[in-house]
Amino acid sequence: MQLYSFFNSSTSYRVRIALALKGLDYQVVPVNLRQGEQLRPADRQRNPLGALPTLVDADGRRFSQSLAIIDYLDAVQPEPRLIPLDPLHRAQALELALLVACDIHPLNNVRVLKYLTQVLGIDAEDRQRWYAHWVAEGLAAAETLLNRHRRGAFFAGTAAGIVECCLVPQLANARRMGCVLAPYPALLELEGRCLALEAFQRASPERQPDYLPD
Amino acid sequence: MQLYSFFNSSTSYRVRIALALKGLDYQVVPVNLRQGEQLRPADRQRNPLGALPTLVDADGRRFSQSLAIIDYLDAVQPEPRLIPLDPLHRAQALELALLVACDIHPLNNVRVLKYLTQVLGIDAEDRQRWYAHWVAEGLAAAETLLNRHRRGAFFAGTAAGIVECCLVPQLANARRMGCVLAPYPALLELEGRCLALEAFQRASPERQPDYLPD
Repeated sequence: MQLYSFFNSSTSYRVRIALALKGLDYQVVPVNLRQGEQLRPADRQRNPLGALPTLVDADGRRFSQSLAIIDYLDAVQPEPRLIPLDPLHRAQALELALLVACDIHPLNNVRVLKYLTQVLGIDAEDRQRWYAHWVAEGLAAAETLLNRHRRGAFFAGTAAGIVECCLVPQLANARRMGCVLAPYPALLELEGRCLALEAFQRASPERQPDYLPD
Repeated sequence: MQLYSFFNSSTSYRVRIALALKGLDYQVVPVNLRQGEQLRPADRQRNPLGALPTLVDADGRRFSQSLAIIDYLDAVQPEPRLIPLDPLHRAQALELALLVACDIHPLNNVRVLKYLTQVLGIDAEDRQRWYAHWVAEGLAAAETLLNRHRRGAFFAGTAAGIVECCLVPQLANARRMGCVLAPYPALLELEGRCLALEAFQRASPERQPDYLPD
């Protein structure tokens, strides 16, 4: 399998964690988001939105959308399971994963920040305030849901899953952008547990072949 | 069951379609997004993000995030199935549903448009351009994926499912906001098939108890 990925794309990072948790072997194909490589014709053919990540499986089939890819990995290699099977536990895990995927990250990804700056002429201070606003709204809700529905050391019980695949990259992004994270002790405690695991370390931006220091 | 819903919230509309396709009985509890009712303390307790929709089941359990709710409905009442079971078909359906849910809708919902206008001082013309920009980027990719992976009269075959639950409300929103839809003939043809179905008609904004004409 190949994963088209950029080291600090948080959606790529989600899938790298999922692949590492399942112990699946794959090759990273770097696509430099900062240089717009995701918009080259071959990249747009592979991923019509011009986004990352894209997983290409052993049969050459292409999958985009990080949460769809994680669901697919659970379907083709069920253990260790990343999305619980029990309907209630499953709904609660998807609720928290989708809160990050729909209500935090889309407002703060590279294409949106570029549009704010380059088309709307928003200055650096307002751009930073925009970023921090959606992070704060979303993480406050995530903190509440984590405390409400957590079933063990990790969200769904004894092992990390789709919730942690989404939260850890989101917290890394928020920290990189200077957001205040102290109001979310439960999220930070969960993040700490994850970062102690080999799978999360292997998936991290600084361990990627295309990593560039800031 | 109760669904906390606003007539022209497209995420509420997704879940109304899903409930109607499954023939499930439920009561609509209107929450007026325009008046900020989703931010009242009891509403925030039910849905920590202060968003819609929220489904409350017969046991009083609360579920937010429209795609998590649709997945939950498939788990508790599998027929008619809205998300395919086959791993490949499933990944392709989720990919298109998530394209709408993560890459189009979050940029154009009420809280974001309010922030652009009220905090950033964006004028009506730039706000409209912002809206149309993300719709055009997303629907172009959706048109490609629909043509690439469609398996019958509907995306997944002979019946409407999660893809149609997401696309029909997104197209309704885009049309209401004056976006040009002619470049997406496959999406429009699929939308036409859906709107001919009783389930989609029952779920539509104008059939809701809280409907207000523009």
